[in-house]
Amino acid sequence: MSIRVLPSPEAPKGVADVGHSVLKFRAQTAVEAPDHLAVEEPLDIRLGGASFSVTMRTPGHDEELVAGLLFSERIVHGRDSLDVVAHYRDPDAAPGIGNVINVILKGDVRMARERLRRSLVASSSCGVCGKVTIDALTANCAPIAFDGRVPASLLTRITGALESAQSTFQKTGGLHAAALFDLEGGMLVVREDIGRHNAVDKVIGHMLLADRLPVDRHVLMVSGRASFDIMQKAWMARIPVVAAVSAPSSMAVQMALAADMTLVGFLRPGGFNVYAGAQRITGKEA
Amino acid sequence: MSIRVLPSPEAPKGVADVGHSVLKFRAQTAVEAPDHLAVEEPLDIRLGGASFSVTMRTPGHDEELVAGLLFSERIVHGRDSLDVVAHYRDPDAAPGIGNVINVILKGDVRMARERLRRSLVASSSCGVCGKVTIDALTANCAPIAFDGRVPASLLTRITGALESAQSTFQKTGGLHAAALFDLEGGMLVVREDIGRHNAVDKVIGHMLLADRLPVDRHVLMVSGRASFDIMQKAWMARIPVVAAVSAPSSMAVQMALAADMTLVGFLRPGGFNVYAGAQRITGKEA
Repeated sequence: MSIRVLPSPEAPKGVADVGHSVLKFRAQTAVEAPDHLAVEEPLDIRLGGASFSVTMRTPGHDEELVAGLLFSERIVHGRDSLDVVAHYRDPDAAPGIGNVINVILKGDVRMARERLRRSLVASSSCGVCGKVTIDALTANCAPIAFDGRVPASLLTRITGALESAQSTFQKTGGLHAAALFDLEGGMLVVREDIGRHNAVDKVIGHMLLADRLPVDRHVLMVSGRASFDIMQKAWMARIPVVAAVSAPSSMAVQMALAADMTLVGFLRPGGFNVYAGAQRITGKEA
Repeated sequence: MSIRVLPSPEAPKGVADVGHSVLKFRAQTAVEAPDHLAVEEPLDIRLGGASFSVTMRTPGHDEELVAGLLFSERIVHGRDSLDVVAHYRDPDAAPGIGNVINVILKGDVRMARERLRRSLVASSSCGVCGKVTIDALTANCAPIAFDGRVPASLLTRITGALESAQSTFQKTGGLHAAALFDLEGGMLVVREDIGRHNAVDKVIGHMLLADRLPVDRHVLMVSGRASFDIMQKAWMARIPVVAAVSAPSSMAVQMALAADMTLVGFLRPGGFNVYAGAQRITGKEA
């Protein structure tokens, strides 16, 4: 059976620009003006109809978010593990209809549910960081074997591509973006979310639903910082190069070294820093 | 019995500046240089000796982080609910000794554990956001009743105070800060962490351990964005004014309105935006 990814009945937008105005205090003045807000809403994720998790996210591409999240949690391993990912329509509930999503897995759902329960019990302040250490990952995930090269000029070029694609961020200053590029600098997918890790889940979930995992000859670019959880998600999808606009954390660097990934930080049009895997970057000219 | 908050045996620093160098690509050059990284490490939180959660955080003020987290999760209600919060020393384990913390609660630990288990099961991509809706909070938390006034000039002044206090952020670009100010602009406490919500937990945990909750005549300032979870933590600590350097989310604004809190965004020396509770801000001059 092929996967059915049903479109959201009324795709909510990532920016709330209706009905809210803001009071702007500036030197000598305070003026009321319309404003854009980055939307943050809960998504109730159900497995076979039973609720198992609620996560805050920016509405839009919810199917991808859930697919990517389940992939990161090792509940699904590819498109074949998924039967249905679709928004749930409760005939009695008019509002908020876009905030419930139902997943039907192929195979042993009971085992998946128990696995998920354990993973969520162990998790606290962020999606997947709590339950795994680099040691555990190293034991379960082979290091990245990609032996290709990435020109420095490609990296500095893709910053502009992300920026022009990132429509919402410009307006609200409140959304993070993640994008996947091929080695010619072509952008395969870009996603925005109020959560850094959600944006990455959407990107990986998009590729999973398109049956295009692993993405092992690609560059993942994120608009914010690179922390542990971002690197973990990239590793599991076999992405060899992660490039962040802002700083990496110490554990992101440790994980990149353990996974033999390339980690780039402070990526700007004028240059960048390489924290791990510099052997893959060619050309000194930025 | 008075609470014993034992100091961390070897307080780890928030910045790793030893042993790591970075390759800096700039126009025409690539040079290797020493670098600072924001530290991200797992904290294993144990309740009466049994592990119940692992969270990623920047080491330092771990007792405050745990106290603040337990307060936000409604497991403890004040200093009196806590017997001991202390780093655990395993005589056999030499490294990583600073990454395990043990909590001993007064009262019914079994109930607390069950409550915590339920709250963590329901939580996914961030600490406490998953399990509560604004409706649930509104039912359990009274709106903020603070009827004082906050001069606009105080808000623009405290941005400088946060910036000068924030030593690590300057170095790494990778840490968030949260600080609590009184209505004279005095800074009571400032904390940094790689997680926005952790920095806020540390600030609130600091006040809890000092037996100074509620902080109901204060301004909480955060260096990044204001999202749902930040507002929830502030509401529970009864903080009437939250000011963020960056954008608020749509749900942060909704929660501020529901809680009758004042929410300020894009706070800079030259001005700011008010998203809710503008009646508390006096003076048009920024």
